Amino acid sequence: MAENQPLDIEEIVRDSFDENEAEQLTDKLSQLEPEEIAIALEAMPVEQRVATWLTLHSDDQIAALTYMRVDARDNVFKQLDEAQLRSLVEEMDVDDLIELLDELPQRIYDYACSRLDASQRRWLDTALGYDEDQCGRYADHDMLIINKNAKVRDAIRLFRQLADDAEYHDALFVVDRTGRYVGLVHATQLLGLGSHLPIETVIDKDAPLVEGEMELDQGSDIVSRSGYTALAVVDAEGKLLGRLSIGEALENVRRSLESQFMHTAGLDEEEDLFAPVVDSAKRRALWLGINLLTAFLAAWTIGLFEATLQQVVALAVLMPIVASMGGIAGSQTLTLIIRGLALEQITPKTYLTLLRKELGVGAINGVLWALVIAVTTYFWFGDWVIGGIIGMAIIINIVVAAIAGVLIPIWLEKLDIDPALSGSVILTTVTDVIGFFAFLGLGSLFLLA
Amino acid sequence: MAENQPLDIEEIVRDSFDENEAEQLTDKLSQLEPEEIAIALEAMPVEQRVATWLTLHSDDQIAALTYMRVDARDNVFKQLDEAQLRSLVEEMDVDDLIELLDELPQRIYDYACSRLDASQRRWLDTALGYDEDQCGRYADHDMLIINKNAKVRDAIRLFRQLADDAEYHDALFVVDRTGRYVGLVHATQLLGLGSHLPIETVIDKDAPLVEGEMELDQGSDIVSRSGYTALAVVDAEGKLLGRLSIGEALENVRRSLESQFMHTAGLDEEEDLFAPVVDSAKRRALWLGINLLTAFLAAWTIGLFEATLQQVVALAVLMPIVASMGGIAGSQTLTLIIRGLALEQITPKTYLTLLRKELGVGAINGVLWALVIAVTTYFWFGDWVIGGIIGMAIIINIVVAAIAGVLIPIWLEKLDIDPALSGSVILTTVTDVIGFFAFLGLGSLFLLA
Repeated sequence: MAENQPLDIEEIVRDSFDENEAEQLTDKLSQLEPEEIAIALEAMPVEQRVATWLTLHSDDQIAALTYMRVDARDNVFKQLDEAQLRSLVEEMDVDDLIELLDELPQRIYDYACSRLDASQRRWLDTALGYDEDQCGRYADHDMLIINKNAKVRDAIRLFRQLADDAEYHDALFVVDRTGRYVGLVHATQLLGLGSHLPIETVIDKDAPLVEGEMELDQGSDIVSRSGYTALAVVDAEGKLLGRLSIGEALENVRRSLESQFMHTAGLDEEEDLFAPVVDSAKRRALWLGINLLTAFLAAWTIGLFEATLQQVVALAVLMPIVASMGGIAGSQTLTLIIRGLALEQITPKTYLTLLRKELGVGAINGVLWALVIAVTTYFWFGDWVIGGIIGMAIIINIVVAAIAGVLIPIWLEKLDIDPALSGSVILTTVTDVIGFFAFLGLGSLFLLA
Repeated sequence: MAENQPLDIEEIVRDSFDENEAEQLTDKLSQLEPEEIAIALEAMPVEQRVATWLTLHSDDQIAALTYMRVDARDNVFKQLDEAQLRSLVEEMDVDDLIELLDELPQRIYDYACSRLDASQRRWLDTALGYDEDQCGRYADHDMLIINKNAKVRDAIRLFRQLADDAEYHDALFVVDRTGRYVGLVHATQLLGLGSHLPIETVIDKDAPLVEGEMELDQGSDIVSRSGYTALAVVDAEGKLLGRLSIGEALENVRRSLESQFMHTAGLDEEEDLFAPVVDSAKRRALWLGINLLTAFLAAWTIGLFEATLQQVVALAVLMPIVASMGGIAGSQTLTLIIRGLALEQITPKTYLTLLRKELGVGAINGVLWALVIAVTTYFWFGDWVIGGIIGMAIIINIVVAAIAGVLIPIWLEKLDIDPALSGSVILTTVTDVIGFFAFLGLGSLFLLA
């Protein structure tokens, strides 16, 4: 358990650069929670990270790896030789192995599997029967299980075997003879009961269940809202697969919101702060390429009006204002709708209300900023016609942005495409193309001799 | 406690529009957790929301309000008359009142305070002595407290008084005679102990503490990583102020990451999906105005090169490509750094390493896409010079974007300005201005007759 001091990553990272502090550093790290060790390791360049990680006790080594983002831990794995990997997997339990198997070389993974006993093997096979985003895959096997015919004294004996650092173990999971989940027995409910009584009378059957096939996000929401510290994960027949604890739920909620944030910039949530330059460049190149296509589309739209631009160069100067205001207004709507979709708050019953509201907001801000921009343009170029044209283009683009901001994410969600990842590229393409087209089109109509 | 079925907001929202389903709707809602009721209510337009909220039992009414985002609940409060508000606050405890006081009219708040007893009043005053983002403000008073000289039977008696729906109460908070926090007694540790024994021997003194003056985010991180279901919040003298539970920590982590996401679009995280149009337009106008200033700055940069644009209109056509590629590359770096800052992973010791790495990534992608764009431009305009110019401008802008993407958020964080909110506006201004200046400047150098 952690000492009573907040985590000071800065100090830890500094020490990792200072060879004289090596011993002190290991002391400090060993007092942290695994999640904190993981965050501190991620905050170090790969060389320091590996050197620091190697000084940890093997329990902490494994626990820290399971908490690290995939790329960050992969960059540790890549520095280990076969002997190091073998001795590492020798210390892993099934839950660690499931978490880390994608990063292990096949040979090492096979070696780790060969060391499992029959029951651990069964757990592994069951877990791997579920998809990577399903609760059944990540059901935690570190739980206290009791038969529903047991007595209070059996339950108490189980609780008393708990290690000092066991987390979120204030209830036993009750099963029947066939392994089907029946309910929970809370430690608080056993207090003061006679030791010979059957536990049957204190079984809590009201706790929600998590199904193995549920998405991890959904299971995590259920756990986090239930008020329980851990819920049973069951298979299609109701058999107990494992548990999902509030600690894991919190970690999943955190990762899922973090990935929403990273996706807005086309980044993978697993991206390592200190990834090797070439790896990182490769990952980001795709997103730049997609953006380039949309930028060429915008350029092509402008190209349609070359003749106009040649005559009225002020239009070229003002173009970015139209595109930019549309993009910003659209992003605001888009972001609000993406949050609503993530919370499952957007329903067919309210599509129209939302669209009407965002159109209203767009109309007000469109007219307001169109006036400001038109007047400023007049003072800049001394021409009311250009002012009027840019004003009209702004109104058109902000209203289009409102419609696009509502419809694009809803439509992407229906196609099962992540709106946080693709929404802003598509939206910006729409507001660029419409913005340039409206502005330069109106310019051609009213300004060409 | 919730039934074993996942939350179906779509169905609930549909029912709220259908007057014949009113009774069924209330039944469905009363089976949900308060957090789920809050999410469902937020998913309804204000009229439905208020009508549905009014059908709830007063416990659920208050609990749902405390979980709703500020704007969404404010839009409920605004529809209530004085009598409704009075009877609502009559049911509130101190914790509810602290959570909701900003939305209550002064008169109603005074009325609510006048009904508190002396000890509740003291809690309220202590809580309000802390800032709005400090743990002391939100310390939860719903906890089990025991004197350190008590016996096991006293502890058991306390646990047995727990209501069925009490959440995260698997430990007692132990204090000395002066109210100073001493440690925790876990229910599991009491099992099988003789009832006449002192609790002293089973007090867990290792649990981390949350200080009242800590930021809520920091306190929530401590709780969520500690493995405990609730930690003590103490004042500067070590006196117990209340507790911070894992449920509240999870809610705080969720809100904090959600606000990071909303801030990228200049939105307030409290924004109501169904806010009145005028309120929403007002809130978003400011952000559009700030963006307009930066857009004018970009336009002004272009304006410096009017003569060049008049002669080589192809430059006007290609301008958005330079700005857009710089903006995207910069956002990727910015987003990665913001995540690192949020996790406190960015330290002075690693600034240079990060900058070098991002410069490397920028150089690779800059050269790669410069080549692609130069070749495409050649095929479009049949002119190698324009191709070369845009290629150079792309390299310059992507490299500048990498530097800006690292330095801007670090610098904002030092100034105590939220980089998620302001980072992208400043970054885009830099990449627009530098991009246009490099491209049109090079164009003026090499293309002007």
